[in-house]
Amino acid sequence: MQKPLILISNDDSIASKGIKTLAAIMSQLGEVVVVAPDSHQSGMGHAITLDRPLRVSEVHNFLPGVKAYQCSGTPADCVKFGKHYVLKGRKIDLVVSGINHGSNSSIAVIYSGTMSAAIEAAIEGIPAIGFSLCEFGADIEFGHGEPYIKQIAQTILDNGLPHGVALNVNIPAKKEEAIKGIKICRQTDALFRESFEERKDPYGRAYYWMDGYLQNDDKGGNTDEDALKENYIAIVPVKFDLTDYKAIDVLKSLKLGE
Amino acid sequence: MQKPLILISNDDSIASKGIKTLAAIMSQLGEVVVVAPDSHQSGMGHAITLDRPLRVSEVHNFLPGVKAYQCSGTPADCVKFGKHYVLKGRKIDLVVSGINHGSNSSIAVIYSGTMSAAIEAAIEGIPAIGFSLCEFGADIEFGHGEPYIKQIAQTILDNGLPHGVALNVNIPAKKEEAIKGIKICRQTDALFRESFEERKDPYGRAYYWMDGYLQNDDKGGNTDEDALKENYIAIVPVKFDLTDYKAIDVLKSLKLGE
Repeated sequence: MQKPLILISNDDSIASKGIKTLAAIMSQLGEVVVVAPDSHQSGMGHAITLDRPLRVSEVHNFLPGVKAYQCSGTPADCVKFGKHYVLKGRKIDLVVSGINHGSNSSIAVIYSGTMSAAIEAAIEGIPAIGFSLCEFGADIEFGHGEPYIKQIAQTILDNGLPHGVALNVNIPAKKEEAIKGIKICRQTDALFRESFEERKDPYGRAYYWMDGYLQNDDKGGNTDEDALKENYIAIVPVKFDLTDYKAIDVLKSLKLGE
Repeated sequence: MQKPLILISNDDSIASKGIKTLAAIMSQLGEVVVVAPDSHQSGMGHAITLDRPLRVSEVHNFLPGVKAYQCSGTPADCVKFGKHYVLKGRKIDLVVSGINHGSNSSIAVIYSGTMSAAIEAAIEGIPAIGFSLCEFGADIEFGHGEPYIKQIAQTILDNGLPHGVALNVNIPAKKEEAIKGIKICRQTDALFRESFEERKDPYGRAYYWMDGYLQNDDKGGNTDEDALKENYIAIVPVKFDLTDYKAIDVLKSLKLGE
């Protein structure tokens, strides 16, 4: 039997610990090809590169048995380039993105480069999963997530996903024995409360650093934030059809159009 | 009665014809403040700027009676900066984005900087609309869309929008008399078919230009692509809750989690 073909990307760059960890896990499940940004692309949302060309280089000695490429573009560019150029004509069985250094739960999914790679794959009709660990830092510990990542990826390899859906998987930054299991959740309805810190450059001109924290006023049940707080791994199925079907009737009632 | 406060952004930059046209229309409806990117940000999706600070400058003589600022960040950054810094403490009644030079219908909504500004406002709880004209070019004609843009904006100023919803408005590039009216639609389930053209730089090294076309195999009814083809202005209500609620049960049936 032929091994499944797995394409990997991320937004923390080819140099991150998270993508190497993910590639090592996926190598146990199939043939792995990596196409990842050559520099940090966090917060890139679903950006694509239209105003300049892409540079791509093979990365030697990434992991034994794994072909790896770095690309000057965004995570979504990497998936497009991986599918249409590097793996042209081959059927990709799974796209995985991550493991992100930091949470992509709740509204962060909108800003997430990690998830844009997974959603791009879903648009292309490929089953796709984004994995994130809820902790920042270059040298964080991913070990406790490995058996779950392997299980989730194998389940999707075996069963596929419905059309138009990708998985957003967030893993608590806890010891393995603390993890209670996996919950299937909805996206928490929360938002980042931003502030802008004004500083002056050496020439007296102002510049502004954006900072923020997640403000969660969602009191409903079954949210990914609640699951993570209770030490569950949270899986949210996300879709790229942004239509709010209920709002169609609201707009019609305003006589805005047929 | 106090005039409504309208914040405007876009992704084609403060220098574009589209944003000046939109600001002139909105000036008939309320007090207008513009915070827009200082350079082209098309295809930026919902990117935000985390790895460097923002620069912001007031733009003098943008339009009479209109305060305008240019910002080094993305469209989503501009809305955040507009709300939390420029208009700190003031209630914004409407955010409008555009008028984009080019369509943001169908799957383009995912990659669109124009729509990211509108969706960012919706996340902040502000009624928001992205306007796009289905034609590229720096000097395109917006006149036929103006009465519709004014009508749509006034309707939303009067009635608001449901929580979590922004409007994606696309306008056919036709003469005024050809426009048949407005249709409330769903997002077409189509995708861009990309290709990568390899070129060599003067030093013999490869680089790649991404190009693509929209492949629309959506045979269902009430899509924005169909409405545009029939010379209707297409409005799709879009949401930032990406959860695919139907897929939650599918995942539970796979025994992936509780």
